[in-house]
Amino acid sequence: MDQEPIYIGVDIGGTKIMIVLITEDGSIKGSLRLDTRSADGADKTMDRIAEGIKECSTSINYSLQQVKAIGLGVPGPLNLEKQEVTLAPNLGWENVPVIRMLKERIDLPCYMENDANVAAWGEKVLGAGKPFENFIYLTISTGIGGGLILNNKLYSGAWGAGGELGHMIIEPGGRECTCGSRGCLEAMASGQAIENMARELATGKSGDGLLALNPEEIDGKTVTDLARQGDPAALSIMKEITFYLGIGLANFVHIFNPQAIILGGGVMEASELLLGPVEEEMKKHLLPGFNGRLKILAAELEDMVGAKGAAMLAREFQG
Amino acid sequence: MDQEPIYIGVDIGGTKIMIVLITEDGSIKGSLRLDTRSADGADKTMDRIAEGIKECSTSINYSLQQVKAIGLGVPGPLNLEKQEVTLAPNLGWENVPVIRMLKERIDLPCYMENDANVAAWGEKVLGAGKPFENFIYLTISTGIGGGLILNNKLYSGAWGAGGELGHMIIEPGGRECTCGSRGCLEAMASGQAIENMARELATGKSGDGLLALNPEEIDGKTVTDLARQGDPAALSIMKEITFYLGIGLANFVHIFNPQAIILGGGVMEASELLLGPVEEEMKKHLLPGFNGRLKILAAELEDMVGAKGAAMLAREFQG
Repeated sequence: MDQEPIYIGVDIGGTKIMIVLITEDGSIKGSLRLDTRSADGADKTMDRIAEGIKECSTSINYSLQQVKAIGLGVPGPLNLEKQEVTLAPNLGWENVPVIRMLKERIDLPCYMENDANVAAWGEKVLGAGKPFENFIYLTISTGIGGGLILNNKLYSGAWGAGGELGHMIIEPGGRECTCGSRGCLEAMASGQAIENMARELATGKSGDGLLALNPEEIDGKTVTDLARQGDPAALSIMKEITFYLGIGLANFVHIFNPQAIILGGGVMEASELLLGPVEEEMKKHLLPGFNGRLKILAAELEDMVGAKGAAMLAREFQG
Repeated sequence: MDQEPIYIGVDIGGTKIMIVLITEDGSIKGSLRLDTRSADGADKTMDRIAEGIKECSTSINYSLQQVKAIGLGVPGPLNLEKQEVTLAPNLGWENVPVIRMLKERIDLPCYMENDANVAAWGEKVLGAGKPFENFIYLTISTGIGGGLILNNKLYSGAWGAGGELGHMIIEPGGRECTCGSRGCLEAMASGQAIENMARELATGKSGDGLLALNPEEIDGKTVTDLARQGDPAALSIMKEITFYLGIGLANFVHIFNPQAIILGGGVMEASELLLGPVEEEMKKHLLPGFNGRLKILAAELEDMVGAKGAAMLAREFQG
């Protein structure tokens, strides 16, 4: 029983739940991956998370008494005052009081934040954000989420619903967004946007490369793979994505004057296609005084970024 | 010599400089207005500011020994690390080290912030922002500036160049902005945008109201006055401005989750034409969980807001 104190991080996604047990310095002692099975309802999901936490700590001979706090990363937007998830369509959740539900199952200090926010904090403490007091984290996958590290702290707004950087409208009347508006950054430049654009391009067309494919078989990865091979249609899509990400990043720079913007998420697996071009595009729009010192970087943590970040945020809040 | 300590605030604008002497509780003891005469150069301008400060304090029988600190509001973007104004086209300034220049003339603690930032702080300490820990201040006049009050503090970025909310691009390829980009919020919804749209509408047209006017005689106030009288052309312009401000505000809400957005600046003299309609337009774009509690308010401080805010910021920084 002389083991060091640990923190638990849980990242609740639409298809999987990631649980990590982590020491104060960020070393992973154990981890567990569960299917979310959101159709079973929030109560069942929280049952399985609680069981998973116990199972995971037992398997590495830690007792729950050694756990100092649990951090949850959940899809947002949240209401931190009520400690509820306001709306998570992927989970079928509406006003779900996750903190109370977890504490009913495991009597430990529990904290929550939006999934992109915990990932931002993970990059701050353990990843590409370590050198920076002020940075913007943008995760570009199916959707686009954001996290704001301002003066060394996570800023999530008056009641925890901030950092929704993907819902900045940058093309009024543009592509329809899952939120109901049109022209959000997420609608114009996410993995889903890449897929939508590619399917539209390929529909009713014949030709080589992307245009030869059955539209229904195309996803974001199809497009980035083809773009790497120089396929013109795929490159045209990446050019449009780059255009909108450039505008989005310039907007964040003018608003926040960050030291860095850190880009993560599945689409950034094609970072060599995006990082340089997006930075070039962004620079076209910047006021004097921003260029030169501002860094655009790829995220460093991989698929456990959310769970790691949630654990590290629990450490921060538990203080 | 038993008078209470005072702070001095200086707001340096393109045409006028406002100086106020203010007590710790925000009462104005004296004020002075100078013409900027930027063509004389930055050195002469700083000479006149220093003389103005001495004159103003002498005239109310305060000595400079009683002044605890001086706050400067200057056009941005700034570099706070170098304590320089990076670029202020209205003043013809580029990399001007205003703090050093003022301290050479008056040996007192001096602080600076962007003009919209000091105004935001003025509203926080003395105006409409008093009840809020988190709010966005937007000043809509010839241009559009912004200030961010986050967790009860002014946030101005890594080196003081943040809060440039007017340079958020919301209509790619839209109207040309003074910054060189196109479709910035400032280009689409400022007083200058109102004037530009009205002049374009009136050019080569005949008709009633706005359309009957000589384009060169139209300014923003012409349009708001005519809109109040129900002039269709003026109303169509206000509708477009409202559309873009609605998008801009929705973007800030998603990014910051503020408790309030406070709107100031000359264009808000027509607040009855804008406040309600802009809020309605904004609400069309909001994710669930933001409506209801968020307040859209008119600024309370009048034309001395910048100087008052600068003085109060000097008090804050001086501790």
